[in-house]
Amino acid sequence: MTTPQPRRILSGVQPSGKLHLGNYFGAIKQHIALQNEGTCFYFLADYHSMTTVQDAELRRTLTREAALDYLALGLDPAKAIFFRQSDVPEVCELAWILGTVINMGLLERAHSYKDKVAKGIEASVGLFTYPILMAADILIYRSNLVPVGEDQVQHVEITRDIAEKFNRIYQEVFPLPNYRLEAAAKVPGVDGQKMSKSYGNTIEIFADGKPLKKSVMGIVTDATPVEAPKDPEKCTVFTLYKLFATPEELAALADRYCAGGMGYGEAKALLLAKIDAFFGPFRERRKQLAMDSTYVEDVLRDGARRARAEAMETMAMVRAAVGFAKE
Amino acid sequence: MTTPQPRRILSGVQPSGKLHLGNYFGAIKQHIALQNEGTCFYFLADYHSMTTVQDAELRRTLTREAALDYLALGLDPAKAIFFRQSDVPEVCELAWILGTVINMGLLERAHSYKDKVAKGIEASVGLFTYPILMAADILIYRSNLVPVGEDQVQHVEITRDIAEKFNRIYQEVFPLPNYRLEAAAKVPGVDGQKMSKSYGNTIEIFADGKPLKKSVMGIVTDATPVEAPKDPEKCTVFTLYKLFATPEELAALADRYCAGGMGYGEAKALLLAKIDAFFGPFRERRKQLAMDSTYVEDVLRDGARRARAEAMETMAMVRAAVGFAKE
Repeated sequence: MTTPQPRRILSGVQPSGKLHLGNYFGAIKQHIALQNEGTCFYFLADYHSMTTVQDAELRRTLTREAALDYLALGLDPAKAIFFRQSDVPEVCELAWILGTVINMGLLERAHSYKDKVAKGIEASVGLFTYPILMAADILIYRSNLVPVGEDQVQHVEITRDIAEKFNRIYQEVFPLPNYRLEAAAKVPGVDGQKMSKSYGNTIEIFADGKPLKKSVMGIVTDATPVEAPKDPEKCTVFTLYKLFATPEELAALADRYCAGGMGYGEAKALLLAKIDAFFGPFRERRKQLAMDSTYVEDVLRDGARRARAEAMETMAMVRAAVGFAKE
Repeated sequence: MTTPQPRRILSGVQPSGKLHLGNYFGAIKQHIALQNEGTCFYFLADYHSMTTVQDAELRRTLTREAALDYLALGLDPAKAIFFRQSDVPEVCELAWILGTVINMGLLERAHSYKDKVAKGIEASVGLFTYPILMAADILIYRSNLVPVGEDQVQHVEITRDIAEKFNRIYQEVFPLPNYRLEAAAKVPGVDGQKMSKSYGNTIEIFADGKPLKKSVMGIVTDATPVEAPKDPEKCTVFTLYKLFATPEELAALADRYCAGGMGYGEAKALLLAKIDAFFGPFRERRKQLAMDSTYVEDVLRDGARRARAEAMETMAMVRAAVGFAKE
């Protein structure tokens, strides 16, 4: 028996502003856990961000902030290869090459382009060809596994189609990546809808003190009087509490809901304490990392060096397969 | 007064098989002449060729043959920077970036995509985004002038639109390129239609001996008897003879057409002698260059080195303008 190669796991992170509980429990937590299951390539998708952010200074700031967020939340650069997408420009060359083996129809069927344009994002060529750059991101590291939310499943399927077509036309270069649909916890926002920046209903991870208290106390609840029994399963506060509490703590709070005599304000205070206890250490760590003026840049450059070495190895195979000269 | 910078002239050459008289008098001759009018960047468009050629060995062969053709015909690597497009992969990065500043509509209005698809070329994403890679080719060398045939005018206009948009959104990085519409001589094929590989009516530049004789003797003429006067302006043989003859030679042949008593076979023999005399030295030179097993590769690598240095300078400006890290 041969020892299997460690799995390569890839995920891109859009540097798009303040992270919230939905981001953490929906994706980041799983990404951090995956660090121990294979070689992770985690990149800050700043080429992709060009389809929405057209301000150089804002891009730099968002990228640095996102890096700090992830590092504070437990991304370990000794385990995962953490880098800026734009530090591996080879991915753009691969995107061109992949674009020549697939038909327009494959992109025209992609949901995300239509969805984004419907939301008012400019219908740029970059937005349309986004799935190809994403395929290149996945394939250039010869990734095996891509953890995704439901909206990203189609992108991995497109990537498999592209890889299969390239392998068939030229040479077997790319392993076919699989996706893993993360069984993400339900994270409602303060209004009870899904927590999302675009709904303006978020509770931020790195908020603390008054702003955090204001978010939590602002969670919309129903008008049941304090004395009356309440249904915990219909309450946003309780749903969020689930994310942090032990089974015993959860059972205890459920009992108090059902017994009556507890106001929502009290439940919110319990939730606030939990959020504070859980994210407090991350916030502290973030402050410390931010004080070191070169840490983030050093991490990202080191990640880029490692990622780029892999990318260049892949591109040497790709270039030989399509008939280009050796570098 | 400041000395103006030498103009930068850019042209891409599709490595697509045997060159014919139409290629030479329609484009190559002008390209060679331009070598003395500025700094020329001439590249073998092997990224573009991926939209039609999906065979690695064929791509290598066509690229080497095209390089030999151009060098034999007078492309002087001491004057022009002559290189393979794929030796400057930075152009793909620029293509991605440019794609994020322009709308789908700009590409949807491009004629060449529709024309090529109508001709049966596969509607790949690469074919659709072709004008963006072409814009990147032009802009990455900060070119001022692009000599074009009529079918390429729109591509330079698209390039100007893209450059203007990038300069406006981010920073003034790109000079706006102009096109020069080459006043190309009329070159009919052996059947009287425009000479074109797709019509199968060509006379090849590097053919000689029997194959060349067969092409020239196969030129379609009308049924006017030998004794009768003939209209030189309606004769394909005469039109081709114009490309090579001095005014005196041309007048003499016209007289013989009008006087009658000369058969088309005789006119064809005169044309054949002219073609042989004109291209003979180029053919000899090509044979000599082909014997040197490293010459072409050396030229292209040296060209790539010079082109890439310019491309990297441009990309440093572009990356700073959009907010990426320094390399």
